[in-house]
Amino acid sequence: MPANTFGELFRITTWGESHGGGVGVVVDGCPPKLPLDESDIQGDLDRRRPGQSKITTPRKEADQCRILSGVFQGKTLGSPISIMVDNTDARPEAYSEMAKLFRPSHADYTYQAKYGIRNWEGGGRSSARETIGRVAGAAVGKKVLGKLHPDLEVVCYVKQVKDIIAQIAPEKVKFSEVESNIVRCPDQKTAKKMISLIEKMRAQGDSVGGIIECVVHGVPVGLGEPVFDRLEADLAKAMMSLPASKGFEIGSGFDCIHYTGREHNDLFRMQGGKVRTLTNRSGGVQGGISNGEPVIFRVAFKPVATVMHPQKTISISKKNAELKARGRHDPCVLPRAVPMVEAMTVLVLTDHLLRYRANCAGFNK
Amino acid sequence: MPANTFGELFRITTWGESHGGGVGVVVDGCPPKLPLDESDIQGDLDRRRPGQSKITTPRKEADQCRILSGVFQGKTLGSPISIMVDNTDARPEAYSEMAKLFRPSHADYTYQAKYGIRNWEGGGRSSARETIGRVAGAAVGKKVLGKLHPDLEVVCYVKQVKDIIAQIAPEKVKFSEVESNIVRCPDQKTAKKMISLIEKMRAQGDSVGGIIECVVHGVPVGLGEPVFDRLEADLAKAMMSLPASKGFEIGSGFDCIHYTGREHNDLFRMQGGKVRTLTNRSGGVQGGISNGEPVIFRVAFKPVATVMHPQKTISISKKNAELKARGRHDPCVLPRAVPMVEAMTVLVLTDHLLRYRANCAGFNK
Amino acid sequence: MPANTFGELFRITTWGESHGGGVGVVVDGCPPKLPLDESDIQGDLDRRRPGQSKITTPRKEADQCRILSGVFQGKTLGSPISIMVDNTDARPEAYSEMAKLFRPSHADYTYQAKYGIRNWEGGGRSSARETIGRVAGAAVGKKVLGKLHPDLEVVCYVKQVKDIIAQIAPEKVKFSEVESNIVRCPDQKTAKKMISLIEKMRAQGDSVGGIIECVVHGVPVGLGEPVFDRLEADLAKAMMSLPASKGFEIGSGFDCIHYTGREHNDLFRMQGGKVRTLTNRSGGVQGGISNGEPVIFRVAFKPVATVMHPQKTISISKKNAELKARGRHDPCVLPRAVPMVEAMTVLVLTDHLLRYRANCAGFNK
Amino acid sequence: MPANTFGELFRITTWGESHGGGVGVVVDGCPPKLPLDESDIQGDLDRRRPGQSKITTPRKEADQCRILSGVFQGKTLGSPISIMVDNTDARPEAYSEMAKLFRPSHADYTYQAKYGIRNWEGGGRSSARETIGRVAGAAVGKKVLGKLHPDLEVVCYVKQVKDIIAQIAPEKVKFSEVESNIVRCPDQKTAKKMISLIEKMRAQGDSVGGIIECVVHGVPVGLGEPVFDRLEADLAKAMMSLPASKGFEIGSGFDCIHYTGREHNDLFRMQGGKVRTLTNRSGGVQGGISNGEPVIFRVAFKPVATVMHPQKTISISKKNAELKARGRHDPCVLPRAVPMVEAMTVLVLTDHLLRYRANCAGFNK
Repeated sequence: MPANTFGELFRITTWGESHGGGVGVVVDGCPPKLPLDESDIQGDLDRRRPGQSKITTPRKEADQCRILSGVFQGKTLGSPISIMVDNTDARPEAYSEMAKLFRPSHADYTYQAKYGIRNWEGGGRSSARETIGRVAGAAVGKKVLGKLHPDLEVVCYVKQVKDIIAQIAPEKVKFSEVESNIVRCPDQKTAKKMISLIEKMRAQGDSVGGIIECVVHGVPVGLGEPVFDRLEADLAKAMMSLPASKGFEIGSGFDCIHYTGREHNDLFRMQGGKVRTLTNRSGGVQGGISNGEPVIFRVAFKPVATVMHPQKTISISKKNAELKARGRHDPCVLPRAVPMVEAMTVLVLTDHLLRYRANCAGFNK
Repeated sequence: MPANTFGELFRITTWGESHGGGVGVVVDGCPPKLPLDESDIQGDLDRRRPGQSKITTPRKEADQCRILSGVFQGKTLGSPISIMVDNTDARPEAYSEMAKLFRPSHADYTYQAKYGIRNWEGGGRSSARETIGRVAGAAVGKKVLGKLHPDLEVVCYVKQVKDIIAQIAPEKVKFSEVESNIVRCPDQKTAKKMISLIEKMRAQGDSVGGIIECVVHGVPVGLGEPVFDRLEADLAKAMMSLPASKGFEIGSGFDCIHYTGREHNDLFRMQGGKVRTLTNRSGGVQGGISNGEPVIFRVAFKPVATVMHPQKTISISKKNAELKARGRHDPCVLPRAVPMVEAMTVLVLTDHLLRYRANCAGFNK
Repeated sequence: MPANTFGELFRITTWGESHGGGVGVVVDGCPPKLPLDESDIQGDLDRRRPGQSKITTPRKEADQCRILSGVFQGKTLGSPISIMVDNTDARPEAYSEMAKLFRPSHADYTYQAKYGIRNWEGGGRSSARETIGRVAGAAVGKKVLGKLHPDLEVVCYVKQVKDIIAQIAPEKVKFSEVESNIVRCPDQKTAKKMISLIEKMRAQGDSVGGIIECVVHGVPVGLGEPVFDRLEADLAKAMMSLPASKGFEIGSGFDCIHYTGREHNDLFRMQGGKVRTLTNRSGGVQGGISNGEPVIFRVAFKPVATVMHPQKTISISKKNAELKARGRHDPCVLPRAVPMVEAMTVLVLTDHLLRYRANCAGFNK
Repeated sequence: MPANTFGELFRITTWGESHGGGVGVVVDGCPPKLPLDESDIQGDLDRRRPGQSKITTPRKEADQCRILSGVFQGKTLGSPISIMVDNTDARPEAYSEMAKLFRPSHADYTYQAKYGIRNWEGGGRSSARETIGRVAGAAVGKKVLGKLHPDLEVVCYVKQVKDIIAQIAPEKVKFSEVESNIVRCPDQKTAKKMISLIEKMRAQGDSVGGIIECVVHGVPVGLGEPVFDRLEADLAKAMMSLPASKGFEIGSGFDCIHYTGREHNDLFRMQGGKVRTLTNRSGGVQGGISNGEPVIFRVAFKPVATVMHPQKTISISKKNAELKARGRHDPCVLPRAVPMVEAMTVLVLTDHLLRYRANCAGFNK
């Protein structure tokens, strides 16, 4: 079953390999009459782009997007919005070794085994370049959110790089603080340490992973569709579909096990006429449905598999071999993964908002 | 959008509240001519059943299943298999307080807010009782797995209860070891400590959470559908759709952040003519596709929200209130969650096996 | 891919064979807080029921439905509504011959070929009995329609039996006129002729087909989702999924070919402040979207394949053979197909109303 | 709910308006390792193209396609195949009148009412130009069919134009006969009459409709998924999703009503070791599943709504108005609709073949 489509009512279909004619997305289900042009999308693509700072991969691509359909006189038509970005940094010769050897902990071997063929000029479909379509689609989703819930805000940031942990109060983080440094960590002091570590890793030809935290303010009560499309279940799937993600947790997450039930429960209280909880170990979701508190979750990303050291591996003819170092790499995916986590969050929320409109809104009064 | 259906090609639709006419499942997409009768299902339901041991809730229900359709002369027809279990332990009077108060960290408030109505006689649709349909559906899935991949085996067990951690070599655990004690932890010595802790928690009217680990042996190479239905993404969604789950991680999981890329990569080697990796930090999945190594993941479950102590809360008329203790509770959900995690794993794998058959098998040679 | 589910946002999953534990439906996506009990459903089941008049099959089943979930204190919960009907008229001995021979123009041969097994005690899954689930699901759908568009009305009736054609003005037909005779033809004079013909057919052990026409009043403008889920496309699929249907046409239908474009076009005029068309050859749908005029379509049903005469056929061991006459049959499916056509129409419209709410309502102002 | 995606396992998503950046399709679910390049697609696009003969619209577009992804070194990768065609014939000034007036029996009014906005430079999304994506997607589907069932052949042709009916034996028609004249009617003598009539209509500024018949040879037994995705149900939906279609019938179709059951039944006989039916009133499908006989169906297309005569209509400000004649039109859609019907047939069959592989193949032995 094909699986390049995400979402039910607000739905993106991404296409494209890291090398070839380009990458893109078709957004289906975008409501009509929302203002939209390329500038609404380009900003987020630029935050995702390689080569944007000294701590990301030096691959140079402008990633200029074009809207090919679904917009008329600056407004969405309600028909599919096709957006594409050309591939410009084609250097197949740089990848000739990959034609014959599988890179360890990459998708080379499994793609070859599953499909019997793979585009070995780069990561093909498993490249992070595929996420361009997701980020572009989410930029459209933001227009829907902005129309329906102007005060809903998604803020993602780097919480941890290897063993360097930022001190952050999730409820208070501002987007501008996140974007004020190249590692996208709002704890400015810790951010510097992270940058130093990443630079050191680059110098050593090695890489590091870490944790991205996401907090969503202004989520209306009632999003999430039991029993299978609980909000945290759809968020988990969204995050675990990102390249290099290894874990997802919401609210207290894995830390929940250190509490007893009495300690862990979020007690309800009325505050200023609103239903609130005294703590937010639930992470804003109870029984799979948002409860009005901020939605907070974390995603673990592994250290990038591409390293500048010889590694044991096997060849496509199933012989033991050694893979030599390549010329450029991204020593830490996290700064660029921030807009990806943000994008997937926006896609999940936009979809669930439309789902709520369909089957609940009005009926539940 | 309705969300009581899970799976694409092997698909279950569950129905039923904890109180009312019963609970059940319709399995659609089960291939024909597989032997099936109630006894294939009842065993797993018994492992999920409340009241099965001194450390589970004393709610007493036989949970006897009946197959209503889709089977003829002991074999599946290829048509929908409807399975149901009656609800017998109806004690609405026990829940009268719940009609007016929202239990903290339960789904009472969010269901009321989303739907404007809820079945307050127990947990309604958010009750763990809903998972009967999942376990029954998975029992059917096991017949498909058994036919297609007889040596595929799913083994789940309790890895941790609060701060008590079992020492387990995932590659070697046997199902019989798991089932040899009531807490379902194959480290027999640690199991005793876990049981003691759970009994203590019951005595104190409190509860504890923990971690379930799942290892799947014999997964064929090639399962998982990039880019959105990566195997770990579908597993994450499946697990996070279970009541009380707070986190999911695969392979090295959140621990991946402590490694550099050089340390973390799983190096390929040929062993006995087979492609293997020297380590399995990938957890058996690379690029979203199984690589033939055991699939290993973990799920965190929070301490059960029902505790035997008065708790602050609010009423349905949005007034501050206090919820008194109820008469019976499940001090730790983990022993019963083991067959639930197993069931969701089986459902994901069955679905992905059929998906592989459709679009890849044969074409990739 | 399993295909016992119909609809996107208002979704039914039917299950059950003509013989076995029963038949039923799970309705998912029904909005909350709609009043619902068995009496809302039973009336439509009775109109579908065999044995309801002298011109239908004498198979006697009460078809009493039970709601098993999704309703609490007389109102829908927003969770899946499971409805079932027991099978009571089990006479496997009556079908022993069918175990070995394929009935011509039935589904016996194709089911055996596709699945390698079939429930030969009656029509199994291909029996019209399967439509019980559809009719029950649509009875729930009517509650949604009634809430959202109280003046939307679906009226279906027998337009033609063999060569007997009723004179009917679709815009004016009332439900009560349809139900005033056993053949469900609102042209009372022609209805008598139809009844006579059907009785004659029964006496001769033969059968006849005909045409059902459906008109829907009060359809709001804007239903239908280009480009693939045009309203007429979803209606066509719905109707062609009914047993024994052979053709579908909307508005002018096949007759459209006799006009030139100038003659065929429906010219717009303002009437009483409303947008109207001077003719309705479009059948209420233009560009796949309802235009506010009555939706009118027709469905052709073949003569029932079961006849009381020996017929050439083959055996399951692929030998030429002869099938002898059986004891009872339904000489004309049309009177009972009226509520089936109505049910499928209701399901399509309910689904499209919820879809419109999700992606268009409000945005298009 | 977005509806620009068609198919379950072999799935196309089309995008693009008649005017704007272009039109295209993303094909998801195409199996790997099938040879594919633009030339495999261009031929079918040329058959669909306007301006291909004197009886089609003079709109001139080369409709040159480009494959942007999913193919590597001439073979499919198993990843999404993105194909696009530029829009080159942009003449917005030709449509200025359409900005203010709704063309009768077009989609102008319903799009405006549903979305509150429309691309009035041509037909926008409701233009036949959208079918480029379908035809391109089906060209990919043909590669799958060719691999799995080399002798499966889809032949569509014009059966009737207004009252001119061709004499054709469906079982014997060859593709080359269809393509041997510009009206695509294999009865060469009648084809000439059709061409004359269409030319006359053009001269009169009027238009005509007709019937396309489709016959599929070599369909394996077992395609079609009861109960909702019966083969004829999916074909009906596919055909009724094409612009200008008004009716669908399979096998005996609407003509079935003139027979009794005894006359209508297709009797089984063994012939040359194969199961055959003596007649094929079923049109190759029984119980929703293909029976191995040729699949035969017909689709009615209305006369094109664009005519060169003033017509009554209303304005977007809801005032009565008159629409004057435009400069060019397509007097008969049928010759160009032949490859569209063919494309939708290929898409349905490819999808059902993959579905059969998933859930039935092998299990049914």
